[in-house]
Amino acid sequence: MSRVRRKAGTKEALLVLAPPLVVDPKANRGNWRGYFKNNNQIHIELGMGRGIFLFTLAQKNPDINFIGIEIKEEVLLSGVKKNLAYNLPNLAYVWGDIGDLAGFFANEEVARMYINFCDPWPKIRHAKRRLTHGNFLDIYRAILQESGEVHFKTDNEDLFEFSLNQFCAKNWGLENISLDLYRNLLVDNVPTEYELKFVEQGLKIYRLEAIKNKHK
Amino acid sequence: MSRVRRKAGTKEALLVLAPPLVVDPKANRGNWRGYFKNNNQIHIELGMGRGIFLFTLAQKNPDINFIGIEIKEEVLLSGVKKNLAYNLPNLAYVWGDIGDLAGFFANEEVARMYINFCDPWPKIRHAKRRLTHGNFLDIYRAILQESGEVHFKTDNEDLFEFSLNQFCAKNWGLENISLDLYRNLLVDNVPTEYELKFVEQGLKIYRLEAIKNKHK
Repeated sequence: MSRVRRKAGTKEALLVLAPPLVVDPKANRGNWRGYFKNNNQIHIELGMGRGIFLFTLAQKNPDINFIGIEIKEEVLLSGVKKNLAYNLPNLAYVWGDIGDLAGFFANEEVARMYINFCDPWPKIRHAKRRLTHGNFLDIYRAILQESGEVHFKTDNEDLFEFSLNQFCAKNWGLENISLDLYRNLLVDNVPTEYELKFVEQGLKIYRLEAIKNKHK
Repeated sequence: MSRVRRKAGTKEALLVLAPPLVVDPKANRGNWRGYFKNNNQIHIELGMGRGIFLFTLAQKNPDINFIGIEIKEEVLLSGVKKNLAYNLPNLAYVWGDIGDLAGFFANEEVARMYINFCDPWPKIRHAKRRLTHGNFLDIYRAILQESGEVHFKTDNEDLFEFSLNQFCAKNWGLENISLDLYRNLLVDNVPTEYELKFVEQGLKIYRLEAIKNKHK
């Protein structure tokens, strides 16, 4: 996110916040249940930003383990700090790149993934950077359990259309597709910070749930 | 379509136009290739209206047999009359109800179905009348070949969202989903009469292709 200004010392400020920051996520690959010290499901958010969405879910669902992944340390630091006072035992943060996902999680280790308002990368030559590109979907498929799901929201029509086609081409099962989430709002929708701004501006929110194995 | 006024004598005027009107479509069930006197693929349009779309396709594709189905005789008559001068041997018209589709076509007799700008039936209690309701999709699945397809266009966002979910719930494979057809117009798009009016009004056109057996 170019909207965030780089600040010297952020990295150092972040690293002292471990836990809930996980300094070496690859060391937990295949053993996140050991990290959380229980056998609960693991839900992750790709590009968690300041993390209000995941924090809300973690508060509401103490029996699920949540991991937020974010590469921009300034944003991540702000999120971790804000939530630190609550010290939720079921919420952890990974400072890392989505491209390294298969290094953070073993096959079938994750039950659900959230992707909220990711960068649309509108230029065709950047299509592979979109988090719903087929190459990413293959990585997600590997780390998700058989009944695993991706929940995806965006305000970008082109990205949503692209995503629908990518998920379908890769044979995911789609459910609860919405072309205007706030037209018939689900009672349990948890908005992100961006989402609320977009809705105020009158933008539409698109949403889908993609099931790894549709015959679950 | 309530926009069309009933006219006395329409039925009689229509019936003398056989062929290309097929007076007893059920008699051809399982033997449409006999009707057309060749083994070409059969493509049908549900609710063909005045039939410009299907007529254009029939002109462009002499090696495919086209059948338009329409229940409103005033609209159908206008379409049949307009096209009569061309006397295309690969184009036939059925005056009938989509609910009777399985009576018109045998299992796996149809290669492709077009549904263009059908009635959205916006009230929830009328959902079963929408031509992309799961109950209809089951009928379409029966009459379509293994590699058969439904090509669907609408200007109605709610109907398109509903349709995406219905096709996905019924395990159809989706391809070429477009949330704004005229943003990246396919070169081979054939517009309907309504479509051109909608586009002039600045409305978006939604489109998808649904494949009966996605592992074709």
